[in-house]
Amino acid sequence: MKPDFPSFSTRPTVRINLQTIRENYEALKKRVGTAKIGASVKADAYGLGSVPVGKALYGAGCRIFFVATAGEGKILRDGIGPNAAIYVLSGPAPRDKGVLLGAKLKPVINSMGQARFWASVAREVNEPPYTAIHIDTGMNRLGMTAAEVTELGRDKKLWQALNPDWVMSHLACAPDADHPMNKKQLTEFRKAAAQLPLTPLSLANTAGIYLGKPYHFQMVRPGIGLYGGKATTKPDEEVSKSAVSLLAPILQIRELKKGETVGYNATFIASEDMRIAIVGAGYADGVPVRASNRGTAILHDMEVPIVGRVSMDFTALDVSKARLSVEIGGVAVFRGDNLEHEAEQLGTLNYELLTRLGQRCRRDYGR
Amino acid sequence: MKPDFPSFSTRPTVRINLQTIRENYEALKKRVGTAKIGASVKADAYGLGSVPVGKALYGAGCRIFFVATAGEGKILRDGIGPNAAIYVLSGPAPRDKGVLLGAKLKPVINSMGQARFWASVAREVNEPPYTAIHIDTGMNRLGMTAAEVTELGRDKKLWQALNPDWVMSHLACAPDADHPMNKKQLTEFRKAAAQLPLTPLSLANTAGIYLGKPYHFQMVRPGIGLYGGKATTKPDEEVSKSAVSLLAPILQIRELKKGETVGYNATFIASEDMRIAIVGAGYADGVPVRASNRGTAILHDMEVPIVGRVSMDFTALDVSKARLSVEIGGVAVFRGDNLEHEAEQLGTLNYELLTRLGQRCRRDYGR
Repeated sequence: MKPDFPSFSTRPTVRINLQTIRENYEALKKRVGTAKIGASVKADAYGLGSVPVGKALYGAGCRIFFVATAGEGKILRDGIGPNAAIYVLSGPAPRDKGVLLGAKLKPVINSMGQARFWASVAREVNEPPYTAIHIDTGMNRLGMTAAEVTELGRDKKLWQALNPDWVMSHLACAPDADHPMNKKQLTEFRKAAAQLPLTPLSLANTAGIYLGKPYHFQMVRPGIGLYGGKATTKPDEEVSKSAVSLLAPILQIRELKKGETVGYNATFIASEDMRIAIVGAGYADGVPVRASNRGTAILHDMEVPIVGRVSMDFTALDVSKARLSVEIGGVAVFRGDNLEHEAEQLGTLNYELLTRLGQRCRRDYGR
Repeated sequence: MKPDFPSFSTRPTVRINLQTIRENYEALKKRVGTAKIGASVKADAYGLGSVPVGKALYGAGCRIFFVATAGEGKILRDGIGPNAAIYVLSGPAPRDKGVLLGAKLKPVINSMGQARFWASVAREVNEPPYTAIHIDTGMNRLGMTAAEVTELGRDKKLWQALNPDWVMSHLACAPDADHPMNKKQLTEFRKAAAQLPLTPLSLANTAGIYLGKPYHFQMVRPGIGLYGGKATTKPDEEVSKSAVSLLAPILQIRELKKGETVGYNATFIASEDMRIAIVGAGYADGVPVRASNRGTAILHDMEVPIVGRVSMDFTALDVSKARLSVEIGGVAVFRGDNLEHEAEQLGTLNYELLTRLGQRCRRDYGR
């Protein structure tokens, strides 16, 4: 007996286009001219897979990478080999010492406490890795205070032990080009760097790149722009193309009578007879609970509403107006070109929608 | 030179107490008497790790497990061995056939389409696995319609080919004991089952267990209750103890002057001089962006507010009123006994807060 539906798996898929990521890298490279590009591949390359993404970028010529923790750095090192610099943004901590040294990872030094700790480590080993000095210029996250920069600038021995190859800071408000914080941070950064031995500088994330040349210095550090997410609302950011989508198979189609309810807590009530499709992706896969009765998916190029509460493994879509060809095994698409629209619908960030793509999903890197 | 801080890693940790999960299993077992317990370990056991959790439950005597996809079933099978039944809730699909048969997984049959497909598979192989029949009784998610149940009841050959060992349905509104849907679904379920050959029945999830004996039938299928999340607001649900917490190390402490801002987009402005701690966990680890300026963490048994926007890898906490001993390497706790409180603060579900715990976190299974 023949099945009623074509070949498919009930498992959702995250499709990642590595060629697009390479093209986004090239486009950003062109834009920043002689400045280097350090790729932010932390949080498993924003959920896309730090090793495949790292290898693709390496193939495109990228030799500088940023991760958040030593563990992430080790995974990347094992994946891309010895010929790239990998910086660990959270800095050195006692229990990460072995991993940092073993995988030749460069810690980012965020405080005098971290500086002194790492100097004591560096003095004990042969050829300790270089470091980067991270200065806080107003974001109030990680990074040295102005007073600490002054202290470090005066301590030649400490500087030599740390052996920094970059001095960096991070922008808090770069998506808004008119925000006064941008110029303030630029000024603070220059002032701080002037107190330290001459070292290459880096300030801009993806959004910072679009603030223009004065923000580029000797290296920019894009993340979201590589993966096709928008960091700003500027039209010239269109160079960056969407590289990731979440595909969920249609598992079942139901005809509803007026008055019937859908899903947990019966939060959706059919106001007329309708047709819904149950697709195989839920909040465990990255469709937020907050998308319940609010978000949308794309089905055959048509935007269809999510109805009822999103479940852990399944989501219901109103396909009453979708094409007749909607059927079991068909594919509903989340994210993709719709990423920024979804983030706005749900009151969250495109970044978060990427990083929470579920581990259960098959990762399809295509060509 | 001595470090300024004690031994710690910058990596966040998810701490899972397997002994507590076993105790929750025992407590639920006691409550349901002779009914069996089928453990819901889908979505990687709600983010806690399906293999360690599955092994712990197996050790406590559990021999029935539910997962969402064939891939999840295979991972669990490899982890817990051949002597347990593993059901795949999303049902059989053509591309999952090999995995289902290879790992001896029992597909849950949600529609006549799935029934006919699986019967055709079962007729081709020796000793095909048993199945479970899933009936939709008003949730309008997966499951056979009333008309399909009638059709199946009349098709003896199809029934024999499927060889079901359970007939199940799923409750939509069980957390609200007074919701009319509960009794309606119970009635529909009995009516449907009466049309099928005599088979053991199962209806209740964790919340359904607390609806009382008539909902237990021959098997209950708890998930959240095993992991210590609350499914209802009933006081007798206190038998279930919290089994999971997210621990984030303090990476840096900053003194802020009145008027300074914190984090991206400068969404928090200090109304007076204050002290913040930057901890090493962000939305990639499971602290939602929605917790920005809204959520809390626990520090030395004290609830402290999240300030500014949660970043991908870091979160800022207002520790102005925390004990003087707050220092680098100290630990901020998310989830834990605070799970339901956090879910309420953030307008989401305790379930979602568990399933989105990040893969980057170390999993610490303790004793």
